[in-house]
Amino acid sequence: MRVVRRSDELRLLLEERRRKGLTVGLVPTMGALHAGHLSLVRRARHLSDVVVVSVFVNPKQFGEGEDFEHYPRDSEGDLELLRGERTDIAFLPSVENMYPPGATVEVTAGPIGDVYEGADRPGHFNGVCTVVAKLFNIVEPDLAVFGQKDAQQAAVMKRLVKDLDFAIDLVVAPIVRESDGLALSSRNVYLTAEQRNQALALSRSLELGRDAYTQSGDCQLTEKTMLQYLQDAEGVDVSYAGVVDPDSFDAPQPSGRILLIVAGRVGKTRLIDNLVVEAADGGGG
Amino acid sequence: MRVVRRSDELRLLLEERRRKGLTVGLVPTMGALHAGHLSLVRRARHLSDVVVVSVFVNPKQFGEGEDFEHYPRDSEGDLELLRGERTDIAFLPSVENMYPPGATVEVTAGPIGDVYEGADRPGHFNGVCTVVAKLFNIVEPDLAVFGQKDAQQAAVMKRLVKDLDFAIDLVVAPIVRESDGLALSSRNVYLTAEQRNQALALSRSLELGRDAYTQSGDCQLTEKTMLQYLQDAEGVDVSYAGVVDPDSFDAPQPSGRILLIVAGRVGKTRLIDNLVVEAADGGGG
Repeated sequence: MRVVRRSDELRLLLEERRRKGLTVGLVPTMGALHAGHLSLVRRARHLSDVVVVSVFVNPKQFGEGEDFEHYPRDSEGDLELLRGERTDIAFLPSVENMYPPGATVEVTAGPIGDVYEGADRPGHFNGVCTVVAKLFNIVEPDLAVFGQKDAQQAAVMKRLVKDLDFAIDLVVAPIVRESDGLALSSRNVYLTAEQRNQALALSRSLELGRDAYTQSGDCQLTEKTMLQYLQDAEGVDVSYAGVVDPDSFDAPQPSGRILLIVAGRVGKTRLIDNLVVEAADGGGG
Repeated sequence: MRVVRRSDELRLLLEERRRKGLTVGLVPTMGALHAGHLSLVRRARHLSDVVVVSVFVNPKQFGEGEDFEHYPRDSEGDLELLRGERTDIAFLPSVENMYPPGATVEVTAGPIGDVYEGADRPGHFNGVCTVVAKLFNIVEPDLAVFGQKDAQQAAVMKRLVKDLDFAIDLVVAPIVRESDGLALSSRNVYLTAEQRNQALALSRSLELGRDAYTQSGDCQLTEKTMLQYLQDAEGVDVSYAGVVDPDSFDAPQPSGRILLIVAGRVGKTRLIDNLVVEAADGGGG
């Protein structure tokens, strides 16, 4: 595995490989890798000749008062895990290399970036769009893999690719969960044993929401069920519980899949989770 | 010359050529081509194996009350001129092909897009950035040629390439002028004979500005000289006269090249012009 810290060096390496006709898969991450990330790397490994994993804690997607400074970082551990997955290139740029002074141009997510996560974290998805557009242009991958864990991010990434005409296949890989249902997240390391237990309320609320929707086909009732459960759960400060169209994050279509989304704080740690549910027979009410 | 109207068809054509190792040059235009545009095409012809000229009147870069509906359009004339310059591919997409419904992601110019032209035309440079980012991703050119006539656009394009890491060489070609100094512009066709004569005030104000700067090295005096001349000129409703750093469009650097910029309305027609001046010995005062 090559460890590369400068974008110009990465370009040269990839040019060589592309000239040989090899396909390139990109997995953008913020490091603090866990089994969820590794499932994305395996997916890229399966689908492309050359696997590039970027590890970059992107300051632009953190708001004021968020945990940029304290976001978990473990380069050595990350590299060890990436070697284990036969990653070809680990790209660990510095903030200075990614954002030289004087930059003004950015990519904005638009309305899909203003709701739910975007409402709680203003500017977050603009930061994600900008850094991913940069990574796309540096790596020029044939495909890129994102996780369904960040469902709204995945939806925004689909729009990014489509709206700016990137010639990149976007692959969204399913959530990896602990055996008790907790979705894997880099931020789980913040949790005490007690908080970890309290955090299970998120995935449980989604299961209750799925049952409510399957039985009733009623989105409002589904939302209310999830919200009620989270509000009653000990140790959870709920941010939102919603039922949305998985692509637009608008109100769900009358028929078709729906997405259940929840977010909340456990202690100081903000956690999110989601669940795709196939359309109930009665429509999306 | 191939005339292509769909981005997917263009991608296929270019893939073939790229596989043969041919380099691609892109000249983005809004059509109504004149000798200024053709100088850009010749530049691309000289520097690349395959020349793609896009002709697309981009609705996103026109504001409310601007001349999108009435912007001069002449596809047949444009194609004839492009054939004369040995253009390989003319790309004439429809608005529907470039902007399918549902799009939300855009590219924003930032502060450099808020001054001068951007102040007079809010959102203009975001529209330019968005359409050019799309064209870059569809064509994936090795180089792109823009005209110095739209000096602020050229500066914004340099930022676009740099800030989003496009692997594209940006070439800026000089202004083409009539023998009496009038800068070529698609909008010149709007002018009556009398207005065309009045429009000469723009290029003349720039010459006076250059002389003032060369003699004094004083930016404020230079600005005042240009503004005074334009305000006194018959038939010109002046928008601005400025002295700026050619890259940032901020205040000029103490030493180094400066850019003189002017804009104004002659009748209903908004015209712009500019002139690069090397640093006076006395610095940029």
